[in-house]
Amino acid sequence: MLIIGERINTSRKSVNEAVAKRNIDYIQSDVRDQLESGADLIDVNAGSRHGSEIDDLLWLIEVIQQAFPQARLCLDSPVPESLKAVLGHVKLMPMLNSTTGEKTRFEALAPIIASRDCEVVALCIGDRGIPTNADQTLGNAAKLISDLEALGVKRERIYIDPVIQAVSTNSKAALTVLETIEQGRRQFEGVHFICGLSNISFGLPKRSLLNRTFLALAMKAGLDSAIIDPLDKDLLGVLRATAVLTGQDPWCQAYTRAFREGKL
Amino acid sequence: MLIIGERINTSRKSVNEAVAKRNIDYIQSDVRDQLESGADLIDVNAGSRHGSEIDDLLWLIEVIQQAFPQARLCLDSPVPESLKAVLGHVKLMPMLNSTTGEKTRFEALAPIIASRDCEVVALCIGDRGIPTNADQTLGNAAKLISDLEALGVKRERIYIDPVIQAVSTNSKAALTVLETIEQGRRQFEGVHFICGLSNISFGLPKRSLLNRTFLALAMKAGLDSAIIDPLDKDLLGVLRATAVLTGQDPWCQAYTRAFREGKL
Repeated sequence: MLIIGERINTSRKSVNEAVAKRNIDYIQSDVRDQLESGADLIDVNAGSRHGSEIDDLLWLIEVIQQAFPQARLCLDSPVPESLKAVLGHVKLMPMLNSTTGEKTRFEALAPIIASRDCEVVALCIGDRGIPTNADQTLGNAAKLISDLEALGVKRERIYIDPVIQAVSTNSKAALTVLETIEQGRRQFEGVHFICGLSNISFGLPKRSLLNRTFLALAMKAGLDSAIIDPLDKDLLGVLRATAVLTGQDPWCQAYTRAFREGKL
Repeated sequence: MLIIGERINTSRKSVNEAVAKRNIDYIQSDVRDQLESGADLIDVNAGSRHGSEIDDLLWLIEVIQQAFPQARLCLDSPVPESLKAVLGHVKLMPMLNSTTGEKTRFEALAPIIASRDCEVVALCIGDRGIPTNADQTLGNAAKLISDLEALGVKRERIYIDPVIQAVSTNSKAALTVLETIEQGRRQFEGVHFICGLSNISFGLPKRSLLNRTFLALAMKAGLDSAIIDPLDKDLLGVLRATAVLTGQDPWCQAYTRAFREGKL
């Protein structure tokens, strides 16, 4: 299970302040916590800082790489130009978060993706909008995979996000995503599946409970990466437990180590 | 999801004391808590009280039925004679916990099962011992279902327990059970699947975390009943969340009600 730590995001007030004040210690300390808690990549998102996003991203990339040269980064922006401007500053292979199957967005990102070896998160949204069933989602996935491969992206560097909707408005929303992941794993060998969890619980109380329970079900279905807060002990506990239960943690080594380190 | 409350068991020290001292208030209060927390049936087990088991069961059945005439009971004993002696004292349709496919045990229980309309928990253990894969388990299940039907037990009153082993000694243990439940639901229409959860986590730390995560996966696979402690808020939270995520709680009514009642 690949964990992408989501905390360096200026939509979080404390991160926004740290970025505004160029508080190196705050950022490096947060990234250290995420890495120590099991993050494999660090997502970096300054999308809320209109006007200064590129400068902010460059600063974040620099201070993170300075302290953690071994940490891979996931560049997260709604603005293709921002991704283009900062891509060359990332030392290890970056992950780009994200493209969709929408013609305009894909065409804007295509030259950026083609310019460098990178991993790509691909949201199964097409020009007809958000898919409403597994077949539509898998159709969008097939097109995205084929289009990304045409740009030279290897399958094992593609992370398909099936796009989650809220169970509060559609009681089949979770089942549809689980079915999509199960079928997708069979249909597109080598491709990864990823998702943000929190949409699932929109509009309901105790969202963290629904999110982590959904994580367990999604991992069983074949989800092999997630963008999450690795400091959420309850969530990471479910992730470690599910790895044990689905045969992804032979001899329960990661689980018992996490327990010894007080992380369960 | 049918919840069988497991707390009235003399292997628990406080229950053993209450039974020894004929403490009616303690027993009725515990049963009230279980029913208010969502138990559909109350499991009654005095198996640890060798020599007085039948008297103790009769007393328990009486004090529970006295206060809660609407509560169904699950009679739980390793000793067929004990089940036989108390069966007639249960007012509503009892559940018998449990038979296995072992010739000696099944033959001892058969006349008891045939003597009254009841639900039956059937453990997939055969004369060759505990099955080691899904096919063996389903083979045992098929024989148990056929033998129980021959005694006049309707399919919808049969609860198949696939028998869980520990993931600490067999990393495929959980996957095997999940596969068994999934296949079993397709193969044996109308039959229920049940399990005790705690074997799965034997030998590992933070057992409750593994148990409740396994519950989520098992419910997705088709488990529709479980013998659990309904006062375990974390466990019931996962159960309610999984019901939402698997389309078993339309409009999230049970979930939001549980939240309002402080039960999540």
